[in-house]
Amino acid sequence: MELQKSLQNYFDELTSSSPTPGGGNVAALCGVLASSLGEMVCNLTIGKKKYLDFETDAKELLTKFESFKKDFLTLAERDNEAFDRVMDAFKLSKKTEAQKAFRNSAIDHATLEAALVPEEVIIKCKELLPHLEKIAEKGNQNSLSDSGVAISLTAAAAEGAFLNVAINCSGLSNQVTAKEFLKKSEFIYHEIKEKSAGLISQIIKRMTTK
Amino acid sequence: MELQKSLQNYFDELTSSSPTPGGGNVAALCGVLASSLGEMVCNLTIGKKKYLDFETDAKELLTKFESFKKDFLTLAERDNEAFDRVMDAFKLSKKTEAQKAFRNSAIDHATLEAALVPEEVIIKCKELLPHLEKIAEKGNQNSLSDSGVAISLTAAAAEGAFLNVAINCSGLSNQVTAKEFLKKSEFIYHEIKEKSAGLISQIIKRMTTK
Repeated sequence: MELQKSLQNYFDELTSSSPTPGGGNVAALCGVLASSLGEMVCNLTIGKKKYLDFETDAKELLTKFESFKKDFLTLAERDNEAFDRVMDAFKLSKKTEAQKAFRNSAIDHATLEAALVPEEVIIKCKELLPHLEKIAEKGNQNSLSDSGVAISLTAAAAEGAFLNVAINCSGLSNQVTAKEFLKKSEFIYHEIKEKSAGLISQIIKRMTTK
Repeated sequence: MELQKSLQNYFDELTSSSPTPGGGNVAALCGVLASSLGEMVCNLTIGKKKYLDFETDAKELLTKFESFKKDFLTLAERDNEAFDRVMDAFKLSKKTEAQKAFRNSAIDHATLEAALVPEEVIIKCKELLPHLEKIAEKGNQNSLSDSGVAISLTAAAAEGAFLNVAINCSGLSNQVTAKEFLKKSEFIYHEIKEKSAGLISQIIKRMTTK
């Protein structure tokens, strides 16, 4: 993603009818925000007397969250690129039978790529979740809501990404392969959904019963 | 929110240990992103022959989403301000009994305000949801995943905001009032959670059975 872009520009581009950024990009962006909040909670934990026992882990987690943030940023950019390629394929000439066949194949190829990127987002969300669980449990408890927001965002990122896997799979010519691919993503998405819902319930319980 | 800020700056500030932006700001930002995606789907619907019957509604919805976006941006900014005021109150002198009493009262007052802002975010999310439902149902179906991502984000915004209501309520001196206030927010948050989960299930069904 072009990180020098202003928030205003990003929102303007998002609201416009231009092909990118769209929902797939926003889903990956939720991963960026979740990782950033993870980093923030680490930064609010490291150096605090109360959390000295967790200091080494918090430092390791900080590096991990930084790396997740970078990965989600790359995926956000790749989502834009993949969607642009689908649009390019749709613009190909379809005057002759040969051109039509080439165009269909190009659309199919680009659509598969556009399904693969959000699938990667889902996998990344699954990897991120246990680290956020750790920081919610052992990190600065004044920031428990921030750890919780990070978990909510990870679930939203996975859900948003799954919707993008699904819409792209629906456009693939080979529906047998598409359905298998979709099933695999759906399984991980449901795992994340259940896991994050459980974590959020625990966090709310801890906040409201103390 | 300072919309001229670059994405890089926003992420840097978010990850840092500086008091704002934090999870409350990010929750409101999810509302901004959801409204922006709603606008985008309207823009991808208006002017299209296939959606001529929905044209007038889409134009009305576009104006509504723009207004929601502005409201969420204001709430994101207000969340920062409210949190800064809590931090300011904590910094007050506590040498004498009178100072201590004044400081406690100032913390209490600022914390209540910091709970009121995310409560407004939750109410705004509840208002936004039926409009997103409409655009998902009647708007451009090539953008169904985008409408879905907007719904996921609305749920994440409400959940994130509720976590912020909860953590602030846990710090209030009058726990009877705090618990009543929390209960009201929790009720709306659960309504949003159920409603959005139902909508997402329907969207996935439509995508995967066509």
